[in-house]
Amino acid sequence: MQVETTTIATTSPKLVDCYRAVRNFSLKLCETLSPEDCTIQSMPDASPTRWHLAHTTWFFETFLLRERGDYRRYSEDFEVLFNSYYNTVGEQFPRPHRGLLSRPSLGEVLAYRDYVDEQMVRLLNDRVEEVDSIVTLGLQHEQQHQELMLTDIKHMLGRNPLEPVYRDGNWHSAQARGSEWLEFDEGLYEIGHSSQPRAEAFAFDNESPVHRHFLPPFRLASQLVTCGDFMRFIDDGGYQKPELWLSEGWNTANNDGWQAPLYWRQSQGQWSHFTLGGQRPVDMNRPVCHVSYFEADAYARWAGLRLPTEFEWEVAALDESKRATNQATFADSLIASDDVVHPIGSDALMGDVWQWTASQYTAYPGYVAPAGALGEYNGKFMCNQFVLRGGSCATHSTHARATYRNFFAPAARWQFSGIRLAK
Amino acid sequence: MQVETTTIATTSPKLVDCYRAVRNFSLKLCETLSPEDCTIQSMPDASPTRWHLAHTTWFFETFLLRERGDYRRYSEDFEVLFNSYYNTVGEQFPRPHRGLLSRPSLGEVLAYRDYVDEQMVRLLNDRVEEVDSIVTLGLQHEQQHQELMLTDIKHMLGRNPLEPVYRDGNWHSAQARGSEWLEFDEGLYEIGHSSQPRAEAFAFDNESPVHRHFLPPFRLASQLVTCGDFMRFIDDGGYQKPELWLSEGWNTANNDGWQAPLYWRQSQGQWSHFTLGGQRPVDMNRPVCHVSYFEADAYARWAGLRLPTEFEWEVAALDESKRATNQATFADSLIASDDVVHPIGSDALMGDVWQWTASQYTAYPGYVAPAGALGEYNGKFMCNQFVLRGGSCATHSTHARATYRNFFAPAARWQFSGIRLAK
Amino acid sequence: MQVETTTIATTSPKLVDCYRAVRNFSLKLCETLSPEDCTIQSMPDASPTRWHLAHTTWFFETFLLRERGDYRRYSEDFEVLFNSYYNTVGEQFPRPHRGLLSRPSLGEVLAYRDYVDEQMVRLLNDRVEEVDSIVTLGLQHEQQHQELMLTDIKHMLGRNPLEPVYRDGNWHSAQARGSEWLEFDEGLYEIGHSSQPRAEAFAFDNESPVHRHFLPPFRLASQLVTCGDFMRFIDDGGYQKPELWLSEGWNTANNDGWQAPLYWRQSQGQWSHFTLGGQRPVDMNRPVCHVSYFEADAYARWAGLRLPTEFEWEVAALDESKRATNQATFADSLIASDDVVHPIGSDALMGDVWQWTASQYTAYPGYVAPAGALGEYNGKFMCNQFVLRGGSCATHSTHARATYRNFFAPAARWQFSGIRLAK
Amino acid sequence: MQVETTTIATTSPKLVDCYRAVRNFSLKLCETLSPEDCTIQSMPDASPTRWHLAHTTWFFETFLLRERGDYRRYSEDFEVLFNSYYNTVGEQFPRPHRGLLSRPSLGEVLAYRDYVDEQMVRLLNDRVEEVDSIVTLGLQHEQQHQELMLTDIKHMLGRNPLEPVYRDGNWHSAQARGSEWLEFDEGLYEIGHSSQPRAEAFAFDNESPVHRHFLPPFRLASQLVTCGDFMRFIDDGGYQKPELWLSEGWNTANNDGWQAPLYWRQSQGQWSHFTLGGQRPVDMNRPVCHVSYFEADAYARWAGLRLPTEFEWEVAALDESKRATNQATFADSLIASDDVVHPIGSDALMGDVWQWTASQYTAYPGYVAPAGALGEYNGKFMCNQFVLRGGSCATHSTHARATYRNFFAPAARWQFSGIRLAK
Repeated sequence: MQVETTTIATTSPKLVDCYRAVRNFSLKLCETLSPEDCTIQSMPDASPTRWHLAHTTWFFETFLLRERGDYRRYSEDFEVLFNSYYNTVGEQFPRPHRGLLSRPSLGEVLAYRDYVDEQMVRLLNDRVEEVDSIVTLGLQHEQQHQELMLTDIKHMLGRNPLEPVYRDGNWHSAQARGSEWLEFDEGLYEIGHSSQPRAEAFAFDNESPVHRHFLPPFRLASQLVTCGDFMRFIDDGGYQKPELWLSEGWNTANNDGWQAPLYWRQSQGQWSHFTLGGQRPVDMNRPVCHVSYFEADAYARWAGLRLPTEFEWEVAALDESKRATNQATFADSLIASDDVVHPIGSDALMGDVWQWTASQYTAYPGYVAPAGALGEYNGKFMCNQFVLRGGSCATHSTHARATYRNFFAPAARWQFSGIRLAK
Repeated sequence: MQVETTTIATTSPKLVDCYRAVRNFSLKLCETLSPEDCTIQSMPDASPTRWHLAHTTWFFETFLLRERGDYRRYSEDFEVLFNSYYNTVGEQFPRPHRGLLSRPSLGEVLAYRDYVDEQMVRLLNDRVEEVDSIVTLGLQHEQQHQELMLTDIKHMLGRNPLEPVYRDGNWHSAQARGSEWLEFDEGLYEIGHSSQPRAEAFAFDNESPVHRHFLPPFRLASQLVTCGDFMRFIDDGGYQKPELWLSEGWNTANNDGWQAPLYWRQSQGQWSHFTLGGQRPVDMNRPVCHVSYFEADAYARWAGLRLPTEFEWEVAALDESKRATNQATFADSLIASDDVVHPIGSDALMGDVWQWTASQYTAYPGYVAPAGALGEYNGKFMCNQFVLRGGSCATHSTHARATYRNFFAPAARWQFSGIRLAK
Repeated sequence: MQVETTTIATTSPKLVDCYRAVRNFSLKLCETLSPEDCTIQSMPDASPTRWHLAHTTWFFETFLLRERGDYRRYSEDFEVLFNSYYNTVGEQFPRPHRGLLSRPSLGEVLAYRDYVDEQMVRLLNDRVEEVDSIVTLGLQHEQQHQELMLTDIKHMLGRNPLEPVYRDGNWHSAQARGSEWLEFDEGLYEIGHSSQPRAEAFAFDNESPVHRHFLPPFRLASQLVTCGDFMRFIDDGGYQKPELWLSEGWNTANNDGWQAPLYWRQSQGQWSHFTLGGQRPVDMNRPVCHVSYFEADAYARWAGLRLPTEFEWEVAALDESKRATNQATFADSLIASDDVVHPIGSDALMGDVWQWTASQYTAYPGYVAPAGALGEYNGKFMCNQFVLRGGSCATHSTHARATYRNFFAPAARWQFSGIRLAK
Repeated sequence: MQVETTTIATTSPKLVDCYRAVRNFSLKLCETLSPEDCTIQSMPDASPTRWHLAHTTWFFETFLLRERGDYRRYSEDFEVLFNSYYNTVGEQFPRPHRGLLSRPSLGEVLAYRDYVDEQMVRLLNDRVEEVDSIVTLGLQHEQQHQELMLTDIKHMLGRNPLEPVYRDGNWHSAQARGSEWLEFDEGLYEIGHSSQPRAEAFAFDNESPVHRHFLPPFRLASQLVTCGDFMRFIDDGGYQKPELWLSEGWNTANNDGWQAPLYWRQSQGQWSHFTLGGQRPVDMNRPVCHVSYFEADAYARWAGLRLPTEFEWEVAALDESKRATNQATFADSLIASDDVVHPIGSDALMGDVWQWTASQYTAYPGYVAPAGALGEYNGKFMCNQFVLRGGSCATHSTHARATYRNFFAPAARWQFSGIRLAK
């Protein structure tokens, strides 16, 4: 506890810099996008880039600036337009209709960002300590949306037969040959994030409380499943064998005609896939990505293995991070970072692709959602979702940690989601 | 026949000017629109403005330029992307997905237009007479899309709670007080457009062949039904009385919650409606607009009257035009026009709003669709559509004529469609 | 007028016999059906047999018995349960949910029929002349439902992989080889049914008023299109050529995977179809049946011909019936009939299959729906339907006439609908 | 292990009696049903009674009789028709279409049962020990379908405005006034069913392997939530407060218009509900039933408490059963039972209503689905379902046990599902 207080005290001077760094990074992600690119919603689960830019701004305005008496809102209309799902705040413009709005224009959304940023910087310079935790939450929130901007843009561009390039380059690192088994003993392990910081000062509410969980002995693969591995599953008729699949997965795969991961396409015997760098041949040494939980689960069954639980994953990741040095704080890392999204090295558990776990997303024992609107952030989604652990090529390096619980519906494929096996 | 040839001969020198005038007018319609505005498809029946701009260009490229050996296409991809529904030409990008395309950008679509325009002007200057009829068809086609650009933009802006203004001003003229009954005798009337021009040189294939149709005596209202008239229908519970409605209309009205014309909204006892000039109070003296066939039909039944057939309407309109002077040709009118869409005076049958007729859209006796892709223009839609006659505030003044047959599904409300009564 | 009065006067003594004959015939149609058969609704457009038996009874109860002060309803609940679509009468149990009702049981529905029949016979024996026209309407109504019982039972049994037999025997007559062209002159023809009976005493409201219609010269095929004819269309790729189809037809055929008429199945190179007599090889000499308007229209276009208008068909049929002798009244025929549904000889225009016409179903000039609930019988469906003429193997022989207008949506295939060509 | 063998050995003589008892009980449940009642499928999740009767028979035929060389199948068609979801066995008639089949009739299904029963009794009398475990599985399977027959019949009758009565009587026992808190210590508990029988000889595969689970201290309510308790939630606006609901629950409740548990109806200020005994006033002292997981979860949040995990529930139930005496085997109980479905006393954890737990349905550590078709029984549904514990008024008293894991989707309301609170 004492440590944390100290941490905040010493990092507080830098919070305004963190704020600037994160906010700038959102704009940096849009550098290659046109107003048209920023307008389209390619499916109800995705949002237009313009909306992400506005909603993350709305978050600071709603949960920080509006709480202060002297603040004058940029626009009354934006309260509803850019509310994502906070019923406690009020009505929301319907999510599936976000793509119907051509106004406010990209230009006006940027002006809205400037307006709020100016007020926020003033607020942060005023050194009001009690806002620090919400500012940090807002920055973590914006980092989550930065990843969504990339997944949503990829989905939208991927629908376009012109196969546009977002940004050239390799988005995934090659896996080392020969996965090994990392071994762990049975035991009553501590799971979750406490106010006693382990490696980071910040965590979402759904990572707590810390609690004990009993695990039998288990093993985790040192490497991710690669495209080459997954090709063998395809070639062996994995998509045609119902006995490998969960019932709901089998129905989904058949109804939607799945024959390979999302974005994969076979043409004249060659597999290529749509990437943020355009249409590319599938590289068999890189981790398979854009698979649903259903595919990850079927693959594991086909391989005679299984997916890890989120608890196994966390135990392994904490073990790894204990061995690591240089545990920088969020603020330190962020400022130090070169402002590009970059994959964490492939010898670590974290990075490259989010890893589906066998764990359905549920509350930790003793969890109670925070009071007020921010209580809607995580708790109300604890149903029909599976936990993913790790982080991906689209996750900012300062946004990953061993206790982080990402979650998506088991049919979701447009996230950067892959597979790590256990037994 | 002879006359027509002559007409074309004398107007031919001006065809290139017509081309320029029509093409420019499309751009003029976009002057107040942003790239974001031009990107969105607000429902499957509507298309993004950018798509309209490209598709009308594709029409000239496909049916004129590509027929000429030396032409080099602007882009191979555009053949599929901007094909609307011509199966004979080839595959089409699915209509409901037109709003998924952020590329080609507005800028590139404009470049595409420039490229094709340059080739077209060269072709027209070369005075190749046999292309004249297809050029004219292409220009009429573009004029149809100019109206659709306005109806689709209105629909898209109308979904936006910010109520954006497209262009200020009154879009409908006030009706004279006191409608009168225009009387017509029974008789065997000639219907349709022949190669013997009546008032214009051009007509679509669905307006021919000329044929005889027997009509009992009938009367047509001199004025359109006004918003005030329609308010009395609403106030009398017209939307709650199934006995006034066609069965399918009643189901549609209930499923979609119709309580007034599209874009109407009641707030604190006052009715306003969304217009291209923004949200405005309903002016009771102007013609009611944005009603479906179902509403037009229910209104007529409520009034103890009926809708005219398309044959009655045409007989009356030809009678009117015979009395009119100054029958300018398409080319003359177009060049003379001040390049703004303007309503035709409300004392004429034509103008202000398209008028639903009681006639389902069907082939005239002896009609055979033209061979080839252009045969798909009109004929294949002769099913489950009703004919509208007249023209609207969004119809270019050079695009209306007595024999013109517009058609839409009976539930359609986003066109500028209104009501003229008969008995 | 005088003639009609006379007719009714002389047939009145027999109306109670007609009543008994028609009502019995409905039961006869159920002889081979189990309670389970009578319960199922295989699609929203179809109804359970039990519902047909009850609804036709409801019709007499509602429009005749309930009008008489002393009548005590069989069940209050049935007023809503067995109201098909009469908003003027009151609420209706939702049509798509008719298959959710296991009660009242078949036994109770039969008891309901007995109860109403007893009252009806008493009423008819009381010789209250003013009810005669509604009784006749009720009997014609029940005859329509007798055909629907057969089409709906066929559809339901056709979904069952056990391929149950309803009743053995041939349901269609073979066509004579070599169709000829029946020729008709141009002229201003009288169309529709007047109170001056032509061949029959009864007609529905939508067959009037009589009015004049101008027709250019035309020809009608003496024979129906056969399965063999239609096979050539299939073999020539008719279902794969968009240029033959209406746009909506092409979409429907593709979305629903049409490759042949409804109930046809190809297995090991042989075509068979499900019939009321079970699964049978397709007989190439019998008329093609269970085609939609879309298929009929595409077939005609493929053959270089067209479908007749309903006016052409009526002119030809009246011409034929003028040549025929023995114009029995409805009552005479009904009593004389041997109580089986039997096809009219294939040398007549009428019989075997309903024939799609090119005419969309619309009001005759001057038509006004009758006041009150019975006005909902026909008028409110004048939209998005095509007229069929003739009658089918499932139409009682006393139910067909030259002016009869049947109508269905253009995608409907479960009726006994076929094709006669014109040019 | 030794114990189990012994158990089976001594009960084996009675297995044929168990078989007869369970099979007869299915028929007993149909005594008040008509063939029409047994035909209808009121929603895709429900099945017609006739289908349940046939499918449970198919189970014995497929997994026991067909394995024996000399068996001659009753019907080749039934293999597909009555296969529920066993892909390993082969194709299945589509589940949502089970209500389209009027054949085989109820009579023929009963004949099918007789045919299979005769063969089964012969097989059981032959004393082939290795089939015992599959016979027992088949009987447990039939007991599950007996409960489904009741829930599905209730759902079907509940759609009927005639409000038919299945069988009179009280289906739920009154709760004692004043719930108490049962307290449990923290600890590493053993969860699941082993081959070392605790209270019963049989368990499903998903109840094993036995494993250790750490639990913090917890308390469980001694009584179920009553209708009166739940009324206070309704009266307090529970259905209108999004902050009480999971996000998906809130959407479901709004889309489907939930305002009270399924089958509840308010009329003139009084609440009644549809029961298997017809429409009845809601008895405020009886347990609330027909709530979804979403409603159970929202209720618990409103009450400031929570739902128990399935592990907590099992620990408590085992504790209870340890205190109980008279641990009869399945066979003993079954034969002794008076063949009626009867609620277990309300002072026990088990009985009256299934109790939603906070646990999503997932595999126990080390669980591997059995090889072959029977491996599809439970494992492939481990996704997007929540575990229910206990048993209900529709569960046969011999079918409940402390380790039993029932599971349904969180939106399901047609099961007899209620609420027990924890903290």
